[in-house]
Formats: sequence, structure tokens, C-alpha cells
Amino acid sequence: MPAGFVYLVGAGPGPLDLLTLKAASLLKNADVIVYDRLIQPAVLDLATPTAERIFMGKLLGGPVSQQDDIHALLLQKAREGKTVVRLKGGDPFMFGRGGEEAEFLAAHDVAFEVVPGVSSALAAPLRAGIAVTHRGVSSCVAFVTGHETQDDAGGLDWEALARIQTLVFVMAVDNVRRIATRLIAHGRSPSTPVAIIQKAFWDNE
Amino acid sequence: MPAGFVYLVGAGPGPLDLLTLKAASLLKNADVIVYDRLIQPAVLDLATPTAERIFMGKLLGGPVSQQDDIHALLLQKAREGKTVVRLKGGDPFMFGRGGEEAEFLAAHDVAFEVVPGVSSALAAPLRAGIAVTHRGVSSCVAFVTGHETQDDAGGLDWEALARIQTLVFVMAVDNVRRIATRLIAHGRSPSTPVAIIQKAFWDNE
Repeated sequence: MPAGFVYLVGAGPGPLDLLTLKAASLLKNADVIVYDRLIQPAVLDLATPTAERIFMGKLLGGPVSQQDDIHALLLQKAREGKTVVRLKGGDPFMFGRGGEEAEFLAAHDVAFEVVPGVSSALAAPLRAGIAVTHRGVSSCVAFVTGHETQDDAGGLDWEALARIQTLVFVMAVDNVRRIATRLIAHGRSPSTPVAIIQKAFWDNE
Repeated sequence: MPAGFVYLVGAGPGPLDLLTLKAASLLKNADVIVYDRLIQPAVLDLATPTAERIFMGKLLGGPVSQQDDIHALLLQKAREGKTVVRLKGGDPFMFGRGGEEAEFLAAHDVAFEVVPGVSSALAAPLRAGIAVTHRGVSSCVAFVTGHETQDDAGGLDWEALARIQTLVFVMAVDNVRRIATRLIAHGRSPSTPVAIIQKAFWDNE
């Protein structure tokens, strides 16, 4: 049986036309597509009709067990000799848990490649007209998990964060008030301008 | 004369296949393409043979006058009724000075749209196998200008930066030693792992 291959592919912030040419081409040639809830139907329509489509609708910061199921599935399909596209919203290595999947595949001797995508963390501010860096205003931008429930969010250094020029909290919609309070408590000016962006590039943005 | 339109388009980290479908489609339909030194020839080949190609090979952190020339050119072409694609390496709003161009176009009543791209700042670590966020390791990543000569780099808060989990210095190759020294002086552990990535995704990477 031929060896399988897994592509960990960033699908960008949502719309079909913000996919990369490479992602589109890989989708067209995949035997199996493993995707999550951030993938729009038009994107999956690029695949051949016979391709197996498997929804793994993991929530960000969801239980590790779900992540284990994804790992097991990727391994199984690769061992069946399939070409697998693991499609992730945004970029696989920026809040996409692609690092965990890459680590797992490497540890199990599965051949894989990581294909970058347009990160939603950058594209959402862009969509709202905000340049995250700007000459004379900001030469530094930090992207931070907005999920306080996430295992490692406790490790955040709020005093340091409060002093970073541009801050982008990702998937933070449930924690906006708590984040703002904490930043102000650590010295951020209460008059700092803030944008709250939801569903950027989606129909209901 | 019909009104012109300017697209500020991210071309990604270099290779043609990391362009978005939208960027490729806009290139095919552009009257004028204004591009910089980070654009590979294969990308320009997407454009129609009759499209005007204008090289504005601005260096990052280059003189403001050059940026003024770009602004004037975009304005002139738009006023001639042209559809202009202003093609930038990476993402236009992440160390791309796209914010300045957007501001200028808005101030001069030129219709424009910003199209996100795969940021080289993310794609370069990815290419080197590095996830900039990783569960249990890093839930925060800061991207920082690596050009000390850049006007606003003086505003960096090194004490805060030294405490951020993952740090990515962009276009830093001439300043690696100075950056490391400064971070360590502000409390970063001298044993912090470091990757130096140059020409990611290019032939000579």
C-alpha cells in the first residue's frame, strides 16, 4: 500500500477566495478532508465529489480528548495510504493547534507538510480597517488567546501585555470585559481605543 | 472617465501558490500593478501581458520620500481611471505599511480595498517547523520590527517584550545580536531557544 500523506492546511478567515492557490489545489486532489466548524461549505465544494469529508467540529480550547480523536483519525487515514487534507480556519500554527498535530504526526512517522494560511487574527482587524502595525504608531503587535479557560492562559503576563503597543485577543468575545479590566488593573490606559470584531469576512459579520 | 480603484493586496511570503485566489484573480484583471522587491516574477506573470508593471522597490524602513512617491503614483493611476493592484509581500497591514497607503487613499477620496495575505512573519516560523502558539507552551506571540533604524522602533518597551512568551522579530537579520543583548539585559533568559530564518519559501532559504 502506498504511504499516506497529511497536509495541515490553513483555510484563511472564511471566504473561498481567501484560500491560497496551494490549499485549493490540495483540496482538489485529496482523498480525505478533515475540517472544523470554521470552514465554509463553498470551500469544501472544491474537493472532488468522491473525497471523504469528515467534520471534526472542535471548539477552540475544547477538551484534549477531542484533539486526541483528530490525531487518531489522521493517523488511521494516513496508514490507509490516503492523501489527507486537515483543513483549519486561519493559519495552522497561529492559534490553530496545528503544532500539536504536527508533533503527533512526526512522532508516528507520518509524512506531512504544513501549509500556511491567511490568519484570521490578522485578517479580522484588517477587515475592520485596522493596521496592526503602523509607522509612528505601533511597531509591535501581540496576539493573545482570548480564552481564559484555555489550559495555558494562566501563564499570561498581564503587566507585560499592558505595555505592548497593539494587542489582539483572539476568540475573546466572551471575555472582553475581564480582559479590559485586567489590562487596566496592570496599567493600561482606560482610554485605549478598542475594536471588537466578530465574524469578520462572514455573512453575518 | 470611470473612477479608478486601488487594491492593496498581500502576496504572501513569496511562492505563487501561496497567493490567495482573490489576489490571483485581481492580478489577472488589473490595468496597473505596483510591486516591490519581495514579489517573485512568477506572481507577476499572472497579469495580462498588456498590464502596466511598475517596480517600486522600497526597502523596509526606507525613506518616507519613497513612500510618498508610491502614494503619488497610486493617486495618479486611480485618477486616470485605472484598476490598480498594489502588491505587497506578506500581508499589507502587518509590517507592510499598507496602513499608510490606505490612509492616504482615503484622504484623497480614492476608492480602495485591502486584501489580506499570508503574513511572512507567521509563515517563516511555520516553514521552519515552529508553531508560534502551542498549547501548554505559548498562548501569546508578539511580532516586532527588527529594524532599529525604523522611525518608531525607539518606542519599544524592551522590559515588556522580554516577558512575552513567543517573540518574532521581523526583518531583523542585521540586528540579531543587538536584539538578543537587549532582551537579556531586560531579564530574558540567555538560554531562550532562538531560530534565525532568512528567505523562507524562497529558492535560497
